[in-house]
Amino acid sequence: MPWYKVAFEPLGITAEVEGGNSLLEAAGKAGITINSVCGGDGICGRCKMMVKEGQVASEVSPLLTREEIRRGMVLACQSYVQSDLVVEIPEETRAREKIWIDREAQRFRAFHPGLQPREFSRSPLVFKVHLQLTAPSLHNQTDDCRRIEWMVEKLTGLTSMQMGLKVMRQIPEILRRHDFSVTATIGRRRDIGEIMDIEGGDTSGRNYFAVVDVGTSTIVAHLVDAIALSTVDAQACFNSQSLYGREVTSRIMAAERRGVEPLQSCLVEDINRLVSGMASRNRISLRDITAVVCAGNTTMMHFLLGLPVSNIRREPFVAVTLEPPPFRAAEVGIKINPRGLLYTLPGISSWVGGDLTAGILAAGLDEMEEIGMLIDIGTNGEIIVGNREWLVACSASAGPALEGASVGCGMVCEAGAIESVFLRDGKIGYKVIGDQPPAGICGSGIIDLIAVLLERKIIDRAGRLMEGSDPRVSSRDGQVCFLLGPEGRWGGREVYITQEDIDNVLTAKAAIFAATKILLERVEVRLSEVKRLFLAGGFGSYINRENAIKIGLLPDLPLSRIEYVGNTSILGAKLAALSEEAFLKLREIRKKTTYYDLLGSPDYVEQFRQAMFLPHTNIELFPSLAGWGAR
Amino acid sequence: MPWYKVAFEPLGITAEVEGGNSLLEAAGKAGITINSVCGGDGICGRCKMMVKEGQVASEVSPLLTREEIRRGMVLACQSYVQSDLVVEIPEETRAREKIWIDREAQRFRAFHPGLQPREFSRSPLVFKVHLQLTAPSLHNQTDDCRRIEWMVEKLTGLTSMQMGLKVMRQIPEILRRHDFSVTATIGRRRDIGEIMDIEGGDTSGRNYFAVVDVGTSTIVAHLVDAIALSTVDAQACFNSQSLYGREVTSRIMAAERRGVEPLQSCLVEDINRLVSGMASRNRISLRDITAVVCAGNTTMMHFLLGLPVSNIRREPFVAVTLEPPPFRAAEVGIKINPRGLLYTLPGISSWVGGDLTAGILAAGLDEMEEIGMLIDIGTNGEIIVGNREWLVACSASAGPALEGASVGCGMVCEAGAIESVFLRDGKIGYKVIGDQPPAGICGSGIIDLIAVLLERKIIDRAGRLMEGSDPRVSSRDGQVCFLLGPEGRWGGREVYITQEDIDNVLTAKAAIFAATKILLERVEVRLSEVKRLFLAGGFGSYINRENAIKIGLLPDLPLSRIEYVGNTSILGAKLAALSEEAFLKLREIRKKTTYYDLLGSPDYVEQFRQAMFLPHTNIELFPSLAGWGAR
Ligand code: FES
Ligand code: FES
Repeated sequence: MPWYKVAFEPLGITAEVEGGNSLLEAAGKAGITINSVCGGDGICGRCKMMVKEGQVASEVSPLLTREEIRRGMVLACQSYVQSDLVVEIPEETRAREKIWIDREAQRFRAFHPGLQPREFSRSPLVFKVHLQLTAPSLHNQTDDCRRIEWMVEKLTGLTSMQMGLKVMRQIPEILRRHDFSVTATIGRRRDIGEIMDIEGGDTSGRNYFAVVDVGTSTIVAHLVDAIALSTVDAQACFNSQSLYGREVTSRIMAAERRGVEPLQSCLVEDINRLVSGMASRNRISLRDITAVVCAGNTTMMHFLLGLPVSNIRREPFVAVTLEPPPFRAAEVGIKINPRGLLYTLPGISSWVGGDLTAGILAAGLDEMEEIGMLIDIGTNGEIIVGNREWLVACSASAGPALEGASVGCGMVCEAGAIESVFLRDGKIGYKVIGDQPPAGICGSGIIDLIAVLLERKIIDRAGRLMEGSDPRVSSRDGQVCFLLGPEGRWGGREVYITQEDIDNVLTAKAAIFAATKILLERVEVRLSEVKRLFLAGGFGSYINRENAIKIGLLPDLPLSRIEYVGNTSILGAKLAALSEEAFLKLREIRKKTTYYDLLGSPDYVEQFRQAMFLPHTNIELFPSLAGWGAR
Repeated sequence: MPWYKVAFEPLGITAEVEGGNSLLEAAGKAGITINSVCGGDGICGRCKMMVKEGQVASEVSPLLTREEIRRGMVLACQSYVQSDLVVEIPEETRAREKIWIDREAQRFRAFHPGLQPREFSRSPLVFKVHLQLTAPSLHNQTDDCRRIEWMVEKLTGLTSMQMGLKVMRQIPEILRRHDFSVTATIGRRRDIGEIMDIEGGDTSGRNYFAVVDVGTSTIVAHLVDAIALSTVDAQACFNSQSLYGREVTSRIMAAERRGVEPLQSCLVEDINRLVSGMASRNRISLRDITAVVCAGNTTMMHFLLGLPVSNIRREPFVAVTLEPPPFRAAEVGIKINPRGLLYTLPGISSWVGGDLTAGILAAGLDEMEEIGMLIDIGTNGEIIVGNREWLVACSASAGPALEGASVGCGMVCEAGAIESVFLRDGKIGYKVIGDQPPAGICGSGIIDLIAVLLERKIIDRAGRLMEGSDPRVSSRDGQVCFLLGPEGRWGGREVYITQEDIDNVLTAKAAIFAATKILLERVEVRLSEVKRLFLAGGFGSYINRENAIKIGLLPDLPLSRIEYVGNTSILGAKLAALSEEAFLKLREIRKKTTYYDLLGSPDYVEQFRQAMFLPHTNIELFPSLAGWGAR
């Protein structure tokens, strides 16, 4: 292929590239940084450029509006050089000062174009600045610390700074060994910047955060590159506290008997294992991980910080703190940079925690004009309804079945998990994450499976497995069960669902449905007024919304109004980690949200009982299912 | 004596007292707190009241102006009830919101009425607030920490608060065990208030500080009652670092060989011994000592904090920090309240430390209209000259002789020290602190002794002891010496001064005199323009100014312009401890003061050599000594 000249405006930079290279590659050659977050996969829509002269080969993308296409706008990553070119890079394509919900969120946005992306200023909670200082002389005897602070102030505008003794003690040597070229790591602690670390030379290109969703059943950790604003790696495990009980309440009682320390250690060790695993797999030094940002329910945050939990479960249900300040991660035993900071997201009440403020932030519920709803499925199901003016939250104890944790063959959503189950040509099939032999089944697969069993009349509307209804109804562990896999050429572990597993799923979906219904009644909003329902939770694939309605987990809304938004707890936590503006927004959300206590509702028990059918005792609540096989 | 009614206006409170009681006692009976700082000795002038009706027996005090006397103003502590009375208490007499330099300073002010007392708002660096909180309910589920912070904000106006994990962990139990009546201890850390401790009940009446002058040779600690604003106790010891050398420089070299830790331990152990001794003697719990406030030269502050000291002695003489933030005292090993804070006063340069900013503050040099001078005599002699517009400081290495530390029989100024020496009826006499057998001699005694020996021609103008000049010229430790005591009925330890001791004193006074002279020349101020000279240092009695001139320690100014102002380092530190306003003033002083490096002065050595005579090689510099015996 011949070579062509690509001139980028308004920068006045020209690159020479071989024909067939993408415009994104050409820009890279020219040293221009593009605000891409999908890495050139054509799904983030962040690489828009305008072709002013010359020819490119380019497909029309749904991420461009008709008007943009008319003006010659293309996605740079999807457009290939075919002649000399003059290309204009719009301001927003270059700007590196804005961050978006990262890759994962973008993926969902690409599929659900209705989900508003939120922009926040780029201001990571911990950041690094390279300082090239002038050496002291008899005419400039400013002390070492002030010399550093003065330059930090000049470069960042920060005026209020703290520095610990341990850092101070190292400063004279580091400064002189590195010719007064050093990098300061600065953590935001409310109104103050803490100079947490001083390293020799310029290390400002290396700064990582561990962002953790501390769930009652599942702990999900992401390793985030705070410079590139991307997710380096993600890993999850079951919460090893489960040996003290499945529910939050039983763990609190365990802490009352044995003290809070053993429960704290479980979390700290789980987090350390996940983080150090990701760090070594990606050859990232723990020292370069400067912050851990945790979202979780109020009880988990208390356990993590070693705070007494008793009053959370006792009337009037009072937390020690709903908005902990940042602490040193080492103070609770988390192993990152020894002076790295631990941020926990602010919660709303003892029963609606920072994972939900993060969820509201990620879904953008607090900015909607219409009424929206967020249902976050975890061991507690939390439901939030509201808009930019008001938000009301409640929490229902669902149990961990929908996370795959109280199901015999359940597992977290990672390679090997059956993430969806379907009927094809009348036969029950499934899909495994990573296209490998099945090792278990995760939440989204479980929802599908129940719907399919109901449709095939292998279970009845009360969820009872009917013996003889299918050759795969069998028994394991002394219980009747349905044997799902393995099948075909792969082999793999036996995956089945028992009657007890099904009962656990029913309990979970009934708790969430009852809570949803009561909350809407209390705020006097009809279901039809809910314009958008965000379904959140750590499921493996996009959850099958139809199946979620069929089993009565979600209310009967048009599918177009229901969006699966993934693990919003971790998405919101990432936003907060990378943008102090988003972090502060969480505080506003916390203040704006009212907690509604279901225990104060006289009809919760009755509503729950009615929801223990598939989809519900009162089938009139599900008009769209009229004519569906299982009815 | 009959009983009388004393009505206090404008409070509308009446007390019944027996005739002959003082008005101060009557006010005490009525439960009125008077802002006295001298305890009723008639020297602080803080108990002014106006007698509107009735008779008191009262002496005229020089602390009252003619105009005040005309209006019926009296000192309440010096006025005795002789009839029914109506007495008006002026606002400033009642106000408890102002603090003055404390008792000790007042004593000097009483003797040197010219020394301006400085008033600062009462705002101790660490303070306690009693919080009577409402218990949580289903209608008020505010978390425990926020409940506390909200009340602290309401009572103190503080908006920015920090709280450590250890405190948070204890809060739920303390709140509930004490019916939500607790006391918060709050430390000021720059712009932030740290809630350092939460105690059950109301402990706000107990709050003490350890205020420490960390000198190269001597460490002086005062125990200060931060509620009553009074000094509870004071104690001093020699700095046990002296085993690493007498001078700052030799200690720095020791730290270069062995590390800074052993030198840090010396200071920490000295301070702990002094503080715990005072605490137990006064039955004060260490927990109630919430802060330690230290003034000292820059090197001592580095040792105390464990900061590297090497660059202080190497060109360009750069400190790690001249303005350390507050740290937790426990972090350096100081044993007070486990979460108590350590404040160090800001210094001016590597060679003029926080002890001098404190001195400038206590003497009020930074507010003078005329030119003033402060000479602080320690192991380094520091000289400051200037006024409210400008201040210049220098430092001369004097050695510890004038603190009694490099003199064989030298000792700190405590009971048993000979604090003054004089000629009476041609015989050499002395006075011992505490009127007890002598155990040694302290700085003020040494100055007197040299002057007396010179006057009696027992030493010549070069300071040489002349054998045969007096029967008490003898020898000890293989050296010629002068035997001062004991004498008379008391016995006690033998106190003498050797030729080497005298040489050490000469070196010290020569260093200070040469520095004073050069500094005045550099700033182009004639001696006659110096309207007031403040002499500071930890001497036992008011130093004999005439003798200090006679030996050529001080320049030849009229005695009326010279004031001995005591240990201004500790006075300034106390002011800063009890008033954040004063603490912040220290930072202004630090910024305003220029450091002049004597090492940059080509004639220092020559000036020093000339000052090695008594009083000086150039006797013309001492016109007032014309006709004095020794000349
Ligand atoms: S880089 Fe993401 S769409 Fe082009
Ligand atoms: S109380 Fe001090 S002068 Fe009266």
